[in-house]
Amino acid sequence: MHVLVVGSVAFDNVRTPSGHAQNILGGSASHFSVTASYFAPVNLVAVVGEDFGEAELAVFKSRSVGVEGLERATGKTFRWDAEYPPENINEAKTLDTQLNVFEQFSPKIPDAYRDSEFVFLGNIDPTLQRRVCQQLPKARLVALDTMNYWIHRTPEELKKTLSVVDLLLVNEAEARMLAGCHNLRRAARCIQKMGPKMVVVKRGEYGVIMFKDDLIFFVPAYPLEEVHDPTGAGDSFAGGFMGYLAQAGDLTESSLRRAMVYGSVMASFAVEDFGLRRTVRLSRPEIDARFHEFKHMTHFDV
Amino acid sequence: MHVLVVGSVAFDNVRTPSGHAQNILGGSASHFSVTASYFAPVNLVAVVGEDFGEAELAVFKSRSVGVEGLERATGKTFRWDAEYPPENINEAKTLDTQLNVFEQFSPKIPDAYRDSEFVFLGNIDPTLQRRVCQQLPKARLVALDTMNYWIHRTPEELKKTLSVVDLLLVNEAEARMLAGCHNLRRAARCIQKMGPKMVVVKRGEYGVIMFKDDLIFFVPAYPLEEVHDPTGAGDSFAGGFMGYLAQAGDLTESSLRRAMVYGSVMASFAVEDFGLRRTVRLSRPEIDARFHEFKHMTHFDV
Repeated sequence: MHVLVVGSVAFDNVRTPSGHAQNILGGSASHFSVTASYFAPVNLVAVVGEDFGEAELAVFKSRSVGVEGLERATGKTFRWDAEYPPENINEAKTLDTQLNVFEQFSPKIPDAYRDSEFVFLGNIDPTLQRRVCQQLPKARLVALDTMNYWIHRTPEELKKTLSVVDLLLVNEAEARMLAGCHNLRRAARCIQKMGPKMVVVKRGEYGVIMFKDDLIFFVPAYPLEEVHDPTGAGDSFAGGFMGYLAQAGDLTESSLRRAMVYGSVMASFAVEDFGLRRTVRLSRPEIDARFHEFKHMTHFDV
Repeated sequence: MHVLVVGSVAFDNVRTPSGHAQNILGGSASHFSVTASYFAPVNLVAVVGEDFGEAELAVFKSRSVGVEGLERATGKTFRWDAEYPPENINEAKTLDTQLNVFEQFSPKIPDAYRDSEFVFLGNIDPTLQRRVCQQLPKARLVALDTMNYWIHRTPEELKKTLSVVDLLLVNEAEARMLAGCHNLRRAARCIQKMGPKMVVVKRGEYGVIMFKDDLIFFVPAYPLEEVHDPTGAGDSFAGGFMGYLAQAGDLTESSLRRAMVYGSVMASFAVEDFGLRRTVRLSRPEIDARFHEFKHMTHFDV
C-alpha cells in the first residue's frame, strides 16, 4: 500500500550542543517521506521554491519517494533557523522562520494519489489539512500532526479537522493544552471525543503512548548516549508508524503495536545525526535489529 | 526467603490536591514492609517513640511483618509534614520535619535476622546503611535508597556505602546529580562503576528503568486517572521489587524483569489513597491482575 504525506519541505539551520548544520533538507514531509520509504512506497505533496535544486530532489528520488505532488513555486523555499539549548535539548528555540512559498501553500493532490489509503497530514494549517481529507475518499487511516500554534490560534478550525481524522499525533504538552486537562489518560479520552479514535502522545526521551478505545500501549524511547539533533524526531516517528502499517496493510491491534515500535526505532535513528543524514543511510536489517532491541528492553514473562 | 528492611517509621501529615490526612503511618520501612509482605515474609528494623501505639503496631502485625527489630525509644516518633502542590504533584514540599527518636537511630539487627539474604536499606544516613551491611554476611541482594540530601551532604560516606551494595534505587534527578552527568545511560554506567551492579532509576509518571550489565529494561508507570498521594511510591516500588525476588528466590534476568513490574504495580496501588490505606487492603489476585495489565500495555509480537 502507498502512503501519502502532505506537509512542509524546508531548508533548516540547526544548532545543538553537538554542533550545527546549515541549509539542510528539513520539514515534516521530508522527514516523514524518507523514513516511511523504508517500509512502503511513499508519495509526497508539498511546495518548494526556485532555490530547491537537484541535490535535494535526489534525496527523495534515492528513496523512490513520488514527487509528482512536489509543487515548485516562484520564490524561496520555507526556511527555519533554530537552536536547541544545552539545558533542554528537547525543546527547539526558533531563531527565525521564513515561510516564503509555504505561505501560499494550497495542497493539490495529483489524480494518481486520490485513492491513497494511508495518509499523514503534517503540521500545517488545519483548514488545509481538512481540505486534503476531502480529496481522499478511500483513506483508511488519516493521521494528523498539529502544534500549540494552531491549538491557540485556530481552535475551532482544528476541532473541525479533528472530527474527520482517525489518529492524532501530538506531544504531551499539546495533548494537555488541547484537552484542557493535565492527566494524560483523561486528556486522551477528551481528545478521542473530538473525533480521532486513536491518540498517540509523544513524550520525547520518555517514549510514546497510544490510546485506542480501551487500549493503552507504551513504548519507551531508545536510550541513546547522545542526541545530536532532535529535529524531525516526531515526523520520523510518524513515518515509521504509518510506513509499517502500510506495509502490513491492516490496522489490527497487533500491527498497531508493532507500528508504535517501528516509529520509535525510526525516531531514535533520526536524532543520531543532523537532519536526514542518518535516516538516508539506513538499511532494513539495521532497522529490524533495533526493533528487536526494543523487544529486549520491554519484554517480561507472565 | 525473608526480606529485611532497615529504615524509618514515621507519622505523616500530608496535603495533596485530593485532600489531606493527619498522623498517618508513614516512613520508608512502613511502606516497604507492608508492600513486600504480599510476596514474602518481612522483618523490619526501625525506631519509634512512646507515641507509637497498638493501632500502628497492628498494621504491621496484620501483614505478619516481624517487629522484633522495631526499637521503642524515649521520646516521640519521627514526624513529617508535607504538601504536594497542584502544579507539580510529583514533588513533595516539606513543611516540617521532626526527627525526634530517629535522630539517634542506630540500627540493631536482631540475631534472628543476621542471615537475611534480601535486604532493603531505606533512605537513612549512608554510614548507618553501611554498618547494617557489615552485620549481614549472608546477604545475596542489598538494595540501597538514598536522596539528594546525602548526595550533597556526605558524598564520600555515600560512595563508600555504594561500593558495598548490589543495587541502587534513585530517582532521575538524583541519578544525574550523583553521576554529574545528564544523559541517563551514561549516568547509570558511572554509578555502576561506583559499586552497585544494578541501578534502578525511578521517573515518577514516566516509569522506571533498570540498568544491569548491558541490560536496559523499561517499565512504564500505570496510567492512573488520579494520584491521591505520591508519598511512599518509591518505597512501595522497592517493596514489590524485593518482595517478588525473595518469593522467586533467585536473581535471574527473568525474575528481575518481573520484579520491576511488580514494583511498578505496588507503587501504582500505593498512590491511589493516602499513606498505606490502599496498600493494606490489597489482595494477591488484585496485584496479579494489574501485573497482567502491565503486560497488555507493553507487549508486542516480533
